[in-house]
Amino acid sequence: MNTTFERPVRIRFQHCDPAGIVFFPQYLVMTNALVEDWFNEGLQIDYAQMIAQRRVGLPIVKLDCEFSRPSQMGETITLSLNVTNVGRRSISIEIVGQHGDETRFSAKQVLVTTSLESGTSIDIPADIARALATFAPQPESIEAHRS
Amino acid sequence: MNTTFERPVRIRFQHCDPAGIVFFPQYLVMTNALVEDWFNEGLQIDYAQMIAQRRVGLPIVKLDCEFSRPSQMGETITLSLNVTNVGRRSISIEIVGQHGDETRFSAKQVLVTTSLESGTSIDIPADIARALATFAPQPESIEAHRS
Amino acid sequence: MNTTFERPVRIRFQHCDPAGIVFFPQYLVMTNALVEDWFNEGLQIDYAQMIAQRRVGLPIVKLDCEFSRPSQMGETITLSLNVTNVGRRSISIEIVGQHGDETRFSAKQVLVTTSLESGTSIDIPADIARALATFAPQPESIEAHRS
Amino acid sequence: MNTTFERPVRIRFQHCDPAGIVFFPQYLVMTNALVEDWFNEGLQIDYAQMIAQRRVGLPIVKLDCEFSRPSQMGETITLSLNVTNVGRRSISIEIVGQHGDETRFSAKQVLVTTSLESGTSIDIPADIARALATFAPQPESIEAHRS
Repeated sequence: MNTTFERPVRIRFQHCDPAGIVFFPQYLVMTNALVEDWFNEGLQIDYAQMIAQRRVGLPIVKLDCEFSRPSQMGETITLSLNVTNVGRRSISIEIVGQHGDETRFSAKQVLVTTSLESGTSIDIPADIARALATFAPQPESIEAHRS
Repeated sequence: MNTTFERPVRIRFQHCDPAGIVFFPQYLVMTNALVEDWFNEGLQIDYAQMIAQRRVGLPIVKLDCEFSRPSQMGETITLSLNVTNVGRRSISIEIVGQHGDETRFSAKQVLVTTSLESGTSIDIPADIARALATFAPQPESIEAHRS
Repeated sequence: MNTTFERPVRIRFQHCDPAGIVFFPQYLVMTNALVEDWFNEGLQIDYAQMIAQRRVGLPIVKLDCEFSRPSQMGETITLSLNVTNVGRRSISIEIVGQHGDETRFSAKQVLVTTSLESGTSIDIPADIARALATFAPQPESIEAHRS
Repeated sequence: MNTTFERPVRIRFQHCDPAGIVFFPQYLVMTNALVEDWFNEGLQIDYAQMIAQRRVGLPIVKLDCEFSRPSQMGETITLSLNVTNVGRRSISIEIVGQHGDETRFSAKQVLVTTSLESGTSIDIPADIARALATFAPQPESIEAHRS
């Protein structure tokens, strides 16, 4: 079972700062797009519909990043996403950005499922939980982990 | 000695996502602006000149955030910056965003001084180190801390 | 009657591109923030409440810009907004960005009032129309101008 | 001779505002990315190298847009670029964003070649001018058109 979701991303003029390298918040915009692609293409959950029609949000509650090497305009970085934990109301992922063998940054994120109507956390909807099981590291050990 | 640097920031339309709350990378754009204001107004170091003329960069190498409560368009958040450590080539800060007494997010950041010519880390320039001493928690304990 | 609304804006690291000057879409983010400030402070219409509670949108339908001179990180630009026309469902404004006497850019914009529920254009709400009258160039000539 | 350069772009969470539709400056970020792709893939001119090594800039001096219909998160828009004029120091293009047969926005842009060292306009470098000739509407009528 393939538990990694990967996508290439080209470092563009718009991502770079006067120092000529990626402005770090742009890396986080890229990780958000990766999560979106992962939902749409990896989990087969329509992300836009989840937000706009189902009114399920996926805000981040915890973020730990290391930025080990700068990325330059024109480079193509490979972003890889792995699930590290699935709780009852939270999904923990790790995203790594690499250029060839060189790691540029890594980001550990904890995302929580919420109701966009009430603004409070909710259990991961059943269809999403089922889809996540295929990416989870050890599906048998998924526990009620509240965030 | 006042060791906290504070600025208000209004949550604008441009910061918010389809869920109507701050899109989290925008918080990090705000922290970057806060660091810029802190250099210009707190440390009295001209940030733009530091980057463009002196060619000293200040990339982030480590970032740990917690997003505890969402912020809504129209709110004014107070951002507070404290220095937690000053090394030979790195500055550790903690930034907290609050709405009244409620913490919305906190971000621990390690910034490194680099040469924008060579792309490698350099010792914190003397004038910046002197200015930092007024914000550092225990200036007597500043040690050569490499990042 | 003062019909110009002005605000300073500092050109920040986050606005600038690898060429060291403002990345042009950032100017348009700035004009959006200016319109927001103008509503809140000039027209005394709560912009966030207009969007989030009243569900009145203000999308742009026409934009004509000239970018005459680049702006550098660290500069403070004065943004000035003038109303050039108020129609039944549209507001035409002109925004100029200046550094001292030098014009950096100008933007003519036509904004339309819409219902965020139906997505269609609506008449400018009465309180907003009244507030706009104080900024309009010739309030006596306001006509039903559909956009 | 195919004189149109096309690319699809997915409307993402990050592009959308609290009204749930594309925040208009994001359309202009997309058009900048399209110009970048057009240089790299259509004109076979390495855009990043042009900026970073050759120090040739391509700032915009004129922009006229119409935003005819909003775009929603989750949609895929086709962006099409046509060259409308090539001058001695400027390139005029028109970009249209469509969803199926429906036009969402169009943008006429005049870009100028500059030296990033001196900040002044320069003649379009010969290799770029040659590449542009394959996209220009009537290559025989290219005239010295200064912007």
